[in-house]
Amino acid sequence: MQCTFCKSHAFYRREHEGVSLCKRCFTKSIENKVRKTISEYEMFDYKDIIAVAISGGKDSLTLLSILNRLKMRFPLSKLIAITIDEGIYGYREEAISLAKSLTESLGIEHKLFSFKDLFQVTLDEFLKKQNELAPCSYCGVLRRRALEIAGRSVGANKIVTGHNLDDEVQTMLLNILHGGVDRLMRSSPVLADPDGRFIQRVKPLCYLYEREIALYAYVTGLKFQHIPCPHGSRALRGEIRDILNSLEDKHPSLKYTAFSSKMKLSHIIANHKVQLNSCRICGEWTSGDMCEVCRVLLENREIRCLIREA
Amino acid sequence: MQCTFCKSHAFYRREHEGVSLCKRCFTKSIENKVRKTISEYEMFDYKDIIAVAISGGKDSLTLLSILNRLKMRFPLSKLIAITIDEGIYGYREEAISLAKSLTESLGIEHKLFSFKDLFQVTLDEFLKKQNELAPCSYCGVLRRRALEIAGRSVGANKIVTGHNLDDEVQTMLLNILHGGVDRLMRSSPVLADPDGRFIQRVKPLCYLYEREIALYAYVTGLKFQHIPCPHGSRALRGEIRDILNSLEDKHPSLKYTAFSSKMKLSHIIANHKVQLNSCRICGEWTSGDMCEVCRVLLENREIRCLIREA
Repeated sequence: MQCTFCKSHAFYRREHEGVSLCKRCFTKSIENKVRKTISEYEMFDYKDIIAVAISGGKDSLTLLSILNRLKMRFPLSKLIAITIDEGIYGYREEAISLAKSLTESLGIEHKLFSFKDLFQVTLDEFLKKQNELAPCSYCGVLRRRALEIAGRSVGANKIVTGHNLDDEVQTMLLNILHGGVDRLMRSSPVLADPDGRFIQRVKPLCYLYEREIALYAYVTGLKFQHIPCPHGSRALRGEIRDILNSLEDKHPSLKYTAFSSKMKLSHIIANHKVQLNSCRICGEWTSGDMCEVCRVLLENREIRCLIREA
Repeated sequence: MQCTFCKSHAFYRREHEGVSLCKRCFTKSIENKVRKTISEYEMFDYKDIIAVAISGGKDSLTLLSILNRLKMRFPLSKLIAITIDEGIYGYREEAISLAKSLTESLGIEHKLFSFKDLFQVTLDEFLKKQNELAPCSYCGVLRRRALEIAGRSVGANKIVTGHNLDDEVQTMLLNILHGGVDRLMRSSPVLADPDGRFIQRVKPLCYLYEREIALYAYVTGLKFQHIPCPHGSRALRGEIRDILNSLEDKHPSLKYTAFSSKMKLSHIIANHKVQLNSCRICGEWTSGDMCEVCRVLLENREIRCLIREA
């Protein structure tokens, strides 16, 4: 199999574009896609302070590594890596150490923020106290808030996450099939808040297939965490992932089409204004009178442990 | 197994509501759901002239039969059955004869409209002349227009179709996975056009599972067509149908949740105004400068065969 571009030995067939790629052209194509996404959505500005959320997995470490390469295009901007330690025993430790190694080798500042410090409870402790079956949904609510606090604390005006095309399409379907259409709005690859209440979130990997990010990480020798989160059974999301993978096998580029539908929907929904109020407990913005974080913590009889950072 | 409501012998378990039903309570529940949908969405008015699109299949004949029962609530309204004969050899003939039998037995006026008369070409003839692989999408475009012309011709101010919950959810996913988000707008169960350019479409069966409509048709002794359309391979829709059925088995009421997501999306999208223009060929309303019907017919070198009904 020959590389479609340079005719040297190809190691990978990209079905959704009908091309074969050698390692060099493959890594170049991935970096170009990220560059193109950033430029198309005008994700960064020259003086940005960019908090890159890194978990220690393939997506976020690939993200940091590529952003570091592209940094020369934004000489006055600053990258700071942030990691949220949810407090998952036997899992998060390795991830943190891998995240540390990469940031040290790239010379990028790295800050840790823990659920324990922010919410006075680790995820493990929290999950022990309640009987619900969806650890990921609790963790998601708390992690989103933790990222916001972390971003403010390092003075960032952008928070960058490693969400990939598969994540985006899975989440869209999950929101549709499981109820949660309003959340579609919150998941644009450039989630800006015109009123400046939240730090802008951007997702430069949103056009990359998960499997290609894994391949990129292998090919470029990135060391990332392989074991999955012990809480991550994620029943319906897992089923949806399998369904999408099998549909993509039969209809190459279906995930792309689905993602562009998501983009159109997010755009329309984003123009559909939602009134936001201050949470009566912590003062953060919410569509109701109490934010999801306080609801989750109070329902589980945790004390009020969030102080709004102004 | 006992009927949850009257304690007599139950013949069916409705998993998504966790109830068991005897035949009498089952048919009553189906009719009540239709009545509730009609009333919740204010589908009908007292003086409506209602064109009921009947194909001869279980959905549309169930629809006509239930609407006929409910008619006494709208004494001044009028039901007219309309059937579109696409010209599908060996298939449509039986369906038309079943549709005729039912309308005769109910004493409801029944009018036939054919692709041949409206577009000067049968579907079979049309499909022979082109090599594309999606007969359903061509047929859909032409059938929608045929229904509009039929509705105008019988003086209807409402067109009622037998789309069920499964159809609605499948179509939503198809539009999302296959590209066609704009079409979500056109598929509300009460599709009104504030400017009166199109006859209002309503779908009173949109909250009924397909399998329950089939069961209702069997239990009430309706004679309907069983053989599927010979052109209806419908690759991706078939896969999506199987996926949704298997998800529903594992997560009862998932289709309901998905449908309510669709309703929210349609609502938001419907408020997102789209500019409509007159088709430069036939004068019908379209978002571009040429409508889909003319595009389809012209691409296939058919002559212009649509005259706008004022």
